[in-house]
Amino acid sequence: MTTAPSAKFPNLRPAEPQGSDLLAAERARASFNPYDLSVFMYGEEWIGRFNRILEILENDPAMDKSKRYYSGRDDRFSHALWSARRMVELQREHKWNATDISIADFLLDESGPVCNHSDYHHILSLMNFDAHTFQSLSGTSQFSLHKNMFMPTIMSQGTDEQKAKFLAPAQKYQIIGCYAQTELGHGSNVQGLETTATYIPETDEFDLHSPTLTSSKWWIGGLGKAANHAIVMARLISNGKDYGPHPFVVQIRSLVNHRPLRGVTVGDIGPKFGFNTVDNGFVMFDHLHIPRFNMLARFASIKPNTGEYASPPNAKLSYGTMVFVRANIVMGVRFALARAATVAIRYSAVRQQFVDAANPKKHGSRVVETPVLDYTMQQYRVFPVMAQAYACYFTGKEMFRLYNDNQKQMGAGDFSLLADLHATSSGLKSLTTTMAVSAIEDCRRACGGHGYSLFSGLASFYQDYLPNATWEGDNYILTQQTARYLLKTFRNLVAGKSVLQNPTVSYLTTYLQNPTATCPATTPTDFLNPELQLSAFAHRAAHLVAQTVDQLDRQGRTWNSMLVEVNRVSRAHCQLVLVQNFLAALQSDSDLRTPERAPLKNVLTTQAQLYALHTMETELAEFLTCGYLSPAQTQMLKSQTLDLLAAVRPDAVALVDAFGLPDYYLNSALGRQDGKVYEAMTHMAEQEPLNHSDVVAGYEECIRPLVWAGKKIEGATVEVVKERQAKLVFLESTHYARLSLFVLCICMRPEKQVHLHLDL
Amino acid sequence: MTTAPSAKFPNLRPAEPQGSDLLAAERARASFNPYDLSVFMYGEEWIGRFNRILEILENDPAMDKSKRYYSGRDDRFSHALWSARRMVELQREHKWNATDISIADFLLDESGPVCNHSDYHHILSLMNFDAHTFQSLSGTSQFSLHKNMFMPTIMSQGTDEQKAKFLAPAQKYQIIGCYAQTELGHGSNVQGLETTATYIPETDEFDLHSPTLTSSKWWIGGLGKAANHAIVMARLISNGKDYGPHPFVVQIRSLVNHRPLRGVTVGDIGPKFGFNTVDNGFVMFDHLHIPRFNMLARFASIKPNTGEYASPPNAKLSYGTMVFVRANIVMGVRFALARAATVAIRYSAVRQQFVDAANPKKHGSRVVETPVLDYTMQQYRVFPVMAQAYACYFTGKEMFRLYNDNQKQMGAGDFSLLADLHATSSGLKSLTTTMAVSAIEDCRRACGGHGYSLFSGLASFYQDYLPNATWEGDNYILTQQTARYLLKTFRNLVAGKSVLQNPTVSYLTTYLQNPTATCPATTPTDFLNPELQLSAFAHRAAHLVAQTVDQLDRQGRTWNSMLVEVNRVSRAHCQLVLVQNFLAALQSDSDLRTPERAPLKNVLTTQAQLYALHTMETELAEFLTCGYLSPAQTQMLKSQTLDLLAAVRPDAVALVDAFGLPDYYLNSALGRQDGKVYEAMTHMAEQEPLNHSDVVAGYEECIRPLVWAGKKIEGATVEVVKERQAKLVFLESTHYARLSLFVLCICMRPEKQVHLHLDL
Repeated sequence: MTTAPSAKFPNLRPAEPQGSDLLAAERARASFNPYDLSVFMYGEEWIGRFNRILEILENDPAMDKSKRYYSGRDDRFSHALWSARRMVELQREHKWNATDISIADFLLDESGPVCNHSDYHHILSLMNFDAHTFQSLSGTSQFSLHKNMFMPTIMSQGTDEQKAKFLAPAQKYQIIGCYAQTELGHGSNVQGLETTATYIPETDEFDLHSPTLTSSKWWIGGLGKAANHAIVMARLISNGKDYGPHPFVVQIRSLVNHRPLRGVTVGDIGPKFGFNTVDNGFVMFDHLHIPRFNMLARFASIKPNTGEYASPPNAKLSYGTMVFVRANIVMGVRFALARAATVAIRYSAVRQQFVDAANPKKHGSRVVETPVLDYTMQQYRVFPVMAQAYACYFTGKEMFRLYNDNQKQMGAGDFSLLADLHATSSGLKSLTTTMAVSAIEDCRRACGGHGYSLFSGLASFYQDYLPNATWEGDNYILTQQTARYLLKTFRNLVAGKSVLQNPTVSYLTTYLQNPTATCPATTPTDFLNPELQLSAFAHRAAHLVAQTVDQLDRQGRTWNSMLVEVNRVSRAHCQLVLVQNFLAALQSDSDLRTPERAPLKNVLTTQAQLYALHTMETELAEFLTCGYLSPAQTQMLKSQTLDLLAAVRPDAVALVDAFGLPDYYLNSALGRQDGKVYEAMTHMAEQEPLNHSDVVAGYEECIRPLVWAGKKIEGATVEVVKERQAKLVFLESTHYARLSLFVLCICMRPEKQVHLHLDL
Repeated sequence: MTTAPSAKFPNLRPAEPQGSDLLAAERARASFNPYDLSVFMYGEEWIGRFNRILEILENDPAMDKSKRYYSGRDDRFSHALWSARRMVELQREHKWNATDISIADFLLDESGPVCNHSDYHHILSLMNFDAHTFQSLSGTSQFSLHKNMFMPTIMSQGTDEQKAKFLAPAQKYQIIGCYAQTELGHGSNVQGLETTATYIPETDEFDLHSPTLTSSKWWIGGLGKAANHAIVMARLISNGKDYGPHPFVVQIRSLVNHRPLRGVTVGDIGPKFGFNTVDNGFVMFDHLHIPRFNMLARFASIKPNTGEYASPPNAKLSYGTMVFVRANIVMGVRFALARAATVAIRYSAVRQQFVDAANPKKHGSRVVETPVLDYTMQQYRVFPVMAQAYACYFTGKEMFRLYNDNQKQMGAGDFSLLADLHATSSGLKSLTTTMAVSAIEDCRRACGGHGYSLFSGLASFYQDYLPNATWEGDNYILTQQTARYLLKTFRNLVAGKSVLQNPTVSYLTTYLQNPTATCPATTPTDFLNPELQLSAFAHRAAHLVAQTVDQLDRQGRTWNSMLVEVNRVSRAHCQLVLVQNFLAALQSDSDLRTPERAPLKNVLTTQAQLYALHTMETELAEFLTCGYLSPAQTQMLKSQTLDLLAAVRPDAVALVDAFGLPDYYLNSALGRQDGKVYEAMTHMAEQEPLNHSDVVAGYEECIRPLVWAGKKIEGATVEVVKERQAKLVFLESTHYARLSLFVLCICMRPEKQVHLHLDL
């Protein structure tokens, strides 16, 4: 293919005003310095690292993203593999620590061949991260499943001997692993897995077997093509007894030539909505024998010869880790929200549509169209996403604090914080990732037609982000855990049992003391009162808990029939937590108390209010049903929300700038830092492979036979008789009567065809 | 590439019970015969045609869909072009009429190179369709923009001479056209278009020109690669005066060799979220001269030499056409909803997860997991989608009836129906397509992990369906039209002006007579009363209208600040229309009165109730805010909705079967008619191109250097020094101690490398 001059845009500017001028004007009128807010969130040391790593990646051909939107799966996959290998080299070259690696993975933003959902996501990081510089970057690079699932599982569930055998080569990528749990017929219900590992005392081995089609391991990231080892979850069977799923280290492919081993059927599960640079794979075992040594034996093991099972101790400690993982996810969600908001807000400041008659804009003396960011509907669609991002930041921070407190207490044998923390973190994972999934798509749609182009940067981001709602616990199933804890706590309180004090107990108690509390607001501005906001969220959450307990215990509803309510209970609780943490941080965060940070405190306060009131509006039915709000007050609430949108408007661009997401990361024509949206769109269109030649492949076979057929010449009809063969081909140029008729050629075989290159 | 035995699944069955048995059991317990419902909706004659065409497509290699999910854009595009050409041949071969063609396009379900959003979508069809067999199939085939936009525009806006010149060759595909309106910087605001067509009296031509980068035509379906002509909307300028956008027929590419003409910069705009078989294109003009003849002149024209402008007559008649187009869209939305529901419901009947302790399932004597369709949360997620599909059917039908009445009345000079019909049809287009977009994604997610696989059939369907929310009028902007009409009608009523009677006037009047009406329900079953449902929806819609008028007229709010409310007003009105038409049809449709159709009437009544009550629940805040519902009644409403889900449960599979969407159309492993979900998933995975070879491309460069490097042999370290070069490569087989150490080879250049094919 050759490049075609016809698809090269002329050297013209976009119509006035220019996007870069519009964004500059937005930045000039902000009430605060976005860099100060970046420093508040990240710290200067971390920003320095971030920028150093950014520069390395931007200048490395293996990390180039400019072809990403055009490539088919094959090319994407190969390039991703290259980036993954290069990432290992860079890491060694620059002696990156875990924080640096997480920054690099985040910036590269590639769902790589060795990456998948992980119950132990970032456990490894846990051991290396410096808590102060830790920013919960959720980028996934090549080999990340190997790093985030395979190695951590061996580390946490292997014996010292097993670590020596498997972990050392894994750290050098001499063995590359994945984590094979999910099966074709079984996802969330781990107890239903079908793959078996039967102990054979005679040879001291396990017989690994897939008894049915549904027992095929499925969705396993990295397994399809890249990994040579897997941790396989299989039902342990010994002496005829089924001990349920246990982890086994299994070699899948030869280390010599990478071919699948005998007894192993393995491959890629095929194309997906997103994540197509990941080789999610399947594997089936036909009585594959593996040594007894390969069952990870720190918590459970089989004795040689007798096949006797040694059972695991209490697993409570692992709940602490889950809290950490989920705090991490909530902190990471902020970046997904900020990314979506950055693109939508910057583009909305550049994109102009219609003249707002009540408030016409001028460019010089000429009336120009209004930036869509001035329309309240657009503000209503995109500003709350930014507020959600800030809300996730403060809750993530608080959860890390609680995690640390809890770890200390558990070390001293005190498990009192754990249940509340675990329940809340489950619900928060569900709430915040669901929120982010919606926000990305809402922001994409808020970009209008161009949001549908991959150049928006939001379409593929949505596709790749979606699995967050399913992995680390399905978002629907997780809420059942949260609700169970809340219902149990409520029942205990009602029964007068002694309970440990914590924030949940405290708001449920308040509710029980005054179940008919109502909202005191008499004017819209009353809704800005943080105490009012807290009482509203607490009352609504407690009311839903009380109502659900009543329906289960008194009205005899089954759990199954209450699943819709159960989901709502968890959501209401977690929205309260987000509001609570945001407001508490604004009151108590010492970093916000200095006079020079007063402008930050101001804008963050508006964000907190917007988060609270917009959420109240979205969930209005529940605030009304619980009796806290009256119908008359809803009008005040709505009016106050609109006023908040207006208050945010001048700071909107600065608020997304503060997240500091670079163009390299966003990879978006619409969300560019410099506002040169249209220049970027046309430049990227020029690179479209279909434009590499002037005439499309398939023209000869599919278009010319139609265009050339059936023409009349002096009464004669010309017809294509067979593909690529024409009896008589005639052309009437329709180039507006400047050319008269031509008899073009007579040809029976394409190779004999005479092509007249007419200059039309 | 060769096929690899390692990725061939063993001949095993899924675990019991089999999907086919589960679906058979579902079908056996339905309360009605789905074929009767199909006949009620489609008629037997149409079903016969549908099946005949289905058979032709299923057996034509050009219409094969089995490669669709694996192909990159290039291959998809070429194959789509082939299908488009073949479709023209089939149409000629079988002498298909417009209905047949629409069925074939629907079944092929391909977004083809010549397809785009169209303000005149299906206008052509309008002239040929038999009203009785017309089912509003919205499939898009190749050349559909040519058929649905290029030709209809010439037909409706061209003079007889222009039709003779352009339409005759277009019908034979000798010229292939597209419709170029949208520009890089201008979408919905047509008046803001920048492209100019300046009349040159000296040569009696127009000078077509793109003055800025933003004036580039953009998103134009079919333009990128396939079309050789375009209708270009450009600002008509004559004698220095700007008459705003007018349509011009412009040749873009040579008819000889398909190369772009001089003065034309044209190409494809690049990859998109979906619709990647469509060549949405851009075009810029550098002072391209075209004859005066090419300005479509039925309504407006330029006189030769003087350049005098003749202005268009009243365009009111075209509103009638827009009603038709939108009725058609609503009718088509039902298929999108039904398709999503069919996949999600069938798969939910086959997919099993956890044992529901309160209600354990048995297979033989063994307790098995519960089909997810038995969980209320799942029912709550998917059943309402089916109810929405039926609701769209009845409203689509009613809109066609009203359209016909209105056409007759307008023919007799009576325009009284038009305003209401136009306003309602705008809002309905917005509401129902927004509903379908959400429903498809909700159903995809309700399929759990496998919903993320392209084999679900819902992921790519979502991507390709999305543009419906933007074209034919942006869904947000359209609601402003609906709201404007409602507010105006309300103001007229309040002012005591005489107004024409219509359903809108009637419910607004009722509200004005009793603005404080409340819901009379005292038990959950009271909510099943159709009159209660209608009053509830009418009261809520009217209240929103009244409140919005109050805020605009009395409180002095600007239109811009009310856009969020405006959107709600339109939605509330249109939801009322959907409920109204559904309930009215059940009462009055003569086809439902026969005794043998009593079972149909029963199930449809449950669907109507579910649509109404589920919608009330979703929009609960507004029903509470308007004072109609009390907080205490919401519990009854929710309880009744759950009871409806239980009532639908036994008929769920039959209700989606009734839509009669064949496997060829669904192209889904999960939604198969026979329930063989897991067999289909594994079969489709085997076809994944990455599985064509055992060892992935990139292994040599990216994986082997890591796996082979750094191994120790008797204390020596081996390292890869450069890509594809190794100093000393060593392998320790980790195949579980059955093989001991090997020194594999020493190689400095890959071509000299010794490959040992070990049988591990």
